[in-house]
Amino acid sequence: MLYFSTDYMRGAHPEVMAALMDTNMVATPGYGEDDYCRRAERKILEECGIRDGKVYFLEGGTQTNMLVITRLLDYCDGVIAADTGHINVHESGAIEAAGHKVISLPSEDGKIKATDINRCLSDYYGDDTYPHIVKPGMVYITFPTEMGTLYTLGELEDISETCRKWDITLYIDGARLAYGLAAEGNDVTLKDLARLCDAFYIGGTKCGALFGEAVVTRRPELFKGFFSLCKQRGAVLSKGRLLGIQFETLFNGNLYGRIGQHAIETAMLLKDGFRSKGYRMLIDSPTNQQFFILPNEIIERLQENVAFELWGPMRENETPVRFVTDWSTRREDIIELMLLI
Amino acid sequence: MLYFSTDYMRGAHPEVMAALMDTNMVATPGYGEDDYCRRAERKILEECGIRDGKVYFLEGGTQTNMLVITRLLDYCDGVIAADTGHINVHESGAIEAAGHKVISLPSEDGKIKATDINRCLSDYYGDDTYPHIVKPGMVYITFPTEMGTLYTLGELEDISETCRKWDITLYIDGARLAYGLAAEGNDVTLKDLARLCDAFYIGGTKCGALFGEAVVTRRPELFKGFFSLCKQRGAVLSKGRLLGIQFETLFNGNLYGRIGQHAIETAMLLKDGFRSKGYRMLIDSPTNQQFFILPNEIIERLQENVAFELWGPMRENETPVRFVTDWSTRREDIIELMLLI
Amino acid sequence: MLYFSTDYMRGAHPEVMAALMDTNMVATPGYGEDDYCRRAERKILEECGIRDGKVYFLEGGTQTNMLVITRLLDYCDGVIAADTGHINVHESGAIEAAGHKVISLPSEDGKIKATDINRCLSDYYGDDTYPHIVKPGMVYITFPTEMGTLYTLGELEDISETCRKWDITLYIDGARLAYGLAAEGNDVTLKDLARLCDAFYIGGTKCGALFGEAVVTRRPELFKGFFSLCKQRGAVLSKGRLLGIQFETLFNGNLYGRIGQHAIETAMLLKDGFRSKGYRMLIDSPTNQQFFILPNEIIERLQENVAFELWGPMRENETPVRFVTDWSTRREDIIELMLLI
Amino acid sequence: MLYFSTDYMRGAHPEVMAALMDTNMVATPGYGEDDYCRRAERKILEECGIRDGKVYFLEGGTQTNMLVITRLLDYCDGVIAADTGHINVHESGAIEAAGHKVISLPSEDGKIKATDINRCLSDYYGDDTYPHIVKPGMVYITFPTEMGTLYTLGELEDISETCRKWDITLYIDGARLAYGLAAEGNDVTLKDLARLCDAFYIGGTKCGALFGEAVVTRRPELFKGFFSLCKQRGAVLSKGRLLGIQFETLFNGNLYGRIGQHAIETAMLLKDGFRSKGYRMLIDSPTNQQFFILPNEIIERLQENVAFELWGPMRENETPVRFVTDWSTRREDIIELMLLI
Repeated sequence: MLYFSTDYMRGAHPEVMAALMDTNMVATPGYGEDDYCRRAERKILEECGIRDGKVYFLEGGTQTNMLVITRLLDYCDGVIAADTGHINVHESGAIEAAGHKVISLPSEDGKIKATDINRCLSDYYGDDTYPHIVKPGMVYITFPTEMGTLYTLGELEDISETCRKWDITLYIDGARLAYGLAAEGNDVTLKDLARLCDAFYIGGTKCGALFGEAVVTRRPELFKGFFSLCKQRGAVLSKGRLLGIQFETLFNGNLYGRIGQHAIETAMLLKDGFRSKGYRMLIDSPTNQQFFILPNEIIERLQENVAFELWGPMRENETPVRFVTDWSTRREDIIELMLLI
Repeated sequence: MLYFSTDYMRGAHPEVMAALMDTNMVATPGYGEDDYCRRAERKILEECGIRDGKVYFLEGGTQTNMLVITRLLDYCDGVIAADTGHINVHESGAIEAAGHKVISLPSEDGKIKATDINRCLSDYYGDDTYPHIVKPGMVYITFPTEMGTLYTLGELEDISETCRKWDITLYIDGARLAYGLAAEGNDVTLKDLARLCDAFYIGGTKCGALFGEAVVTRRPELFKGFFSLCKQRGAVLSKGRLLGIQFETLFNGNLYGRIGQHAIETAMLLKDGFRSKGYRMLIDSPTNQQFFILPNEIIERLQENVAFELWGPMRENETPVRFVTDWSTRREDIIELMLLI
Repeated sequence: MLYFSTDYMRGAHPEVMAALMDTNMVATPGYGEDDYCRRAERKILEECGIRDGKVYFLEGGTQTNMLVITRLLDYCDGVIAADTGHINVHESGAIEAAGHKVISLPSEDGKIKATDINRCLSDYYGDDTYPHIVKPGMVYITFPTEMGTLYTLGELEDISETCRKWDITLYIDGARLAYGLAAEGNDVTLKDLARLCDAFYIGGTKCGALFGEAVVTRRPELFKGFFSLCKQRGAVLSKGRLLGIQFETLFNGNLYGRIGQHAIETAMLLKDGFRSKGYRMLIDSPTNQQFFILPNEIIERLQENVAFELWGPMRENETPVRFVTDWSTRREDIIELMLLI
Repeated sequence: MLYFSTDYMRGAHPEVMAALMDTNMVATPGYGEDDYCRRAERKILEECGIRDGKVYFLEGGTQTNMLVITRLLDYCDGVIAADTGHINVHESGAIEAAGHKVISLPSEDGKIKATDINRCLSDYYGDDTYPHIVKPGMVYITFPTEMGTLYTLGELEDISETCRKWDITLYIDGARLAYGLAAEGNDVTLKDLARLCDAFYIGGTKCGALFGEAVVTRRPELFKGFFSLCKQRGAVLSKGRLLGIQFETLFNGNLYGRIGQHAIETAMLLKDGFRSKGYRMLIDSPTNQQFFILPNEIIERLQENVAFELWGPMRENETPVRFVTDWSTRREDIIELMLLI
């Protein structure tokens, strides 16, 4: 069987596993009060070009989104997101369960535009009855998006400027950040993200860690009492060091960069393969998620030997599908896949 | 000044006020444990043709929606509503603050269709990854809608049947119910509502009471512990009798029906007046809210002597506006208004 | 039947009812944006000696407590209260439903002491593992207490100073405030309350209004977005003016003071009566709630003609009971009661 | 340095780490839909003597408590716990943040008694005003307790019977379960726990896993929609298999039992050592937490070479302290410690 279903099908990058093994018998304080976490934080802030910021380590994406959004929004505020955004679709209503409306903007390619954000806020502040309407208090975007696409630096700068103009926060979900940073044509760096938004997270779970996300902020004053909030919502690991060890490893010797590059290389190989066979892309993704529209008979044949995802329900003749690569994808698997299509 | 801004600008219908005066010095137990509430409940159930149901008296619409939806939905379920629905737009995110996603369906006229509800549920149950998506657990509709429109009996029956087919509840917000029941061409009765949905509320605040809404259900088993929930969310009046006294009065001698008829008569007078002057309706409403598109110069002139609402921001030449009648609207006021346009 | 069960058995003081009648047909904007509310606010701030404060009108005590505490506490903070405090016992868990722990301090007479508050905070800040423990973020006290007792000015000053020392807020629940201010021996004024706490509420429901409480604060910066929060939790009346009209009336011509005096006079009459018959007080209350320990045979005999409350379950020979007076208590009723004991 | 501070200072038991390494490159579906989880569930149910039950894997104790209590309690219900109980003290108010009051019963030794539970419920149901009081809907106990003590089988049976009599659920927090099951004199088995309560959890984090807790129930009907709830609250690992792999390993070849025995042996060695030196126990604990009252000078001397916890603030002459053993404690460390005291 060949596996391209998603980017969390295997454990962790071997270097991460080795680090967990090597440190297994070391005794440390709990709850992230250990040196691994401290070093990982320092290293990440350095990579992000942040002097007086903070890094918070959490376990998963939904948890991270819920906690950051809860902390940064006031009770009655909502968060603007693409209608395709992860928080709007695939988190079982976590943001609403935390008390906040997701104000969705229509999106074709997973991205939202500064002009749409601007219109949304103009409408809100132009309305006489505004206290009865949910106030947009934050913009949430994903980088890369759920459709595999990327914002350009210019687009991010526009969104950032719009948020500052209206005095709302900008938060970037980087669940697949390694695969965005390494993408061909990407002109956005960690330092750009750190500079343009109020908080973002560096995805570990899908990018080489067993699990874990690192929230980065250059505005720690927004995160007052965040540890207690995380503990209160059941998001603090007793052995917090596990997150520190993993992120320290990911940012040593540029492992995070190498993981991204490997996944992008294999993704591009896969993309070229499908295209050279004449299959249409659903969307032109430069990252580790590749979307094609395949004839149903091909889909059915492939399913015998290949794990991948239908992108929505089966349609009449041909159906969109998704193939995903990650740090663990082998070049041989791509070649074997190519022989099957 | 002539007042057509909304249907909560004055106190209560004089018969309601008289009843509050007459009973003022009577001592009763608190929290709705009094005979007025008991009699009002009995009378309402009778009018609704419900044998073993329950009536719960609450203070306002947002409170009522929040509490009924909280009680009837399980933690992870969302509620389907028109994108124009009150809970989706004008309740400051009350449903989300209670933990639930409002799953909005696009609507032109304030109504949603059984076919759209059906598609929404088919999509949900057809999705492999469904536990990550919010499960639709209820349909919320307004009767009349925020656009002044009404569902026909046939439409309600279709929606009701769809809800039963998918085993989700149907809840009807009757904030302006008196004005829907009394509308020309309306073929829906209290008994129909009671039969077709799991719970609905009879609006008092906008229909002759000082304040108050009466939740009616023929399925009290769905409302287990509802009193405690209401108390816990700060929605129980110590002097619960105030609600009983008002609703008993509204349902004595058909006062609720007379209030509806009066508002509809004045609304139709107003509508005919505008139409005979050649103004376009934004929507053809048979109820107490009337929507027209007026030239901006007329709007500006009217605003000197008449209170009414712009329906959205001012546009270039002409702008939609809303005029509302209620139990307190005087025929003379309509005539005076006609002289101004 | 003679009624002494509680202070919310009848409607409103006749002057309040008259004001509601007189204004019934006046058209005003909704949601408290009317002149009655504005004037009532101004009048109350004046009486409280506050220059740049705010008054928020709400409908009931539990609602008010829940909303003020929600707004003033951060997510992970708890509120210190007497174990007998209303929020700890009789609000169906409203504070916990809003997400906050009630940190209860043992109390004999309904009051808590500055020294106990101080110890609670010393313990908290002295603990290494403090982010796992709920941080006390507010002190909640009732004036009068649920036991009818009153804090002296000196006690309030000590509590206030302790709160400032630890940088936490002080909030006073004045559900029965009229009956505290008017009590013999009371040395606390509205101005003292306003000066010593961050927010308090002037009870209307139990002190002459149909319903309604007025939250007073000299620190409006703590109440950012409070209207939206109230709306979101279903606590905003469409006809907000009803609260303005009532509170304007209560503070015109010192009606609130007269209501308090009347209830205290009748309460003292009742107290003297019981004492002169030789019955023991459970607690020596100077306010409108009077607590005695009566032989069970007396209790059973009285229950035929008099409504009052058992204070806890029946005990073997004698049982504590509560008698309550209010604005509506007639002197004749006290005398009649005295003839029965 | 010798480490006895707590039982989560090191990684995982070597057999658990080996299993994570061995399976690292195997591709599986996400979210616990893998064979490791399935096998671990089957094995655990078998050990618990449950035929038609369910096992849910979560990441940590606070998370698990919050989710189980949320799922099993209705909105207005509270949970009875010892005042020393973890949910009442050390979870940052997680239960209250989930909306529920912790109804605490005083406890000397970390345990609560069936008679106290019974009294609490008698009081509740005997109160006329009960809907204003929080209804006890569950009993929460810890096994072992936070004080290292254990309930006897007889005590558990009494509590279980009391819960059934009042129709409330019983939930047991087994964060340190391995160390309770293996304790000398313990007469409670996994099968007993499974039989006597509605749900309990088998602690992994403190008992040999990197992280993870396994909720066990013989009443899966109480856990309707639990996966979605977990996902919604950010508690679902993408790589759910990590929990399956760990628990499968812990329950293979009785590793969980061996871990317990090792910690108990070293704990008893430590206990005997302290006692033979003449130090007083704070409490006589048969499990892996040992509490002594040490002279402050000894404490200060020890702190140079040994990590352990003060049990509360330093007192005048002598202070209670806690020493903890676990799967990773070496016999040599105990001996070395003995040489220091």
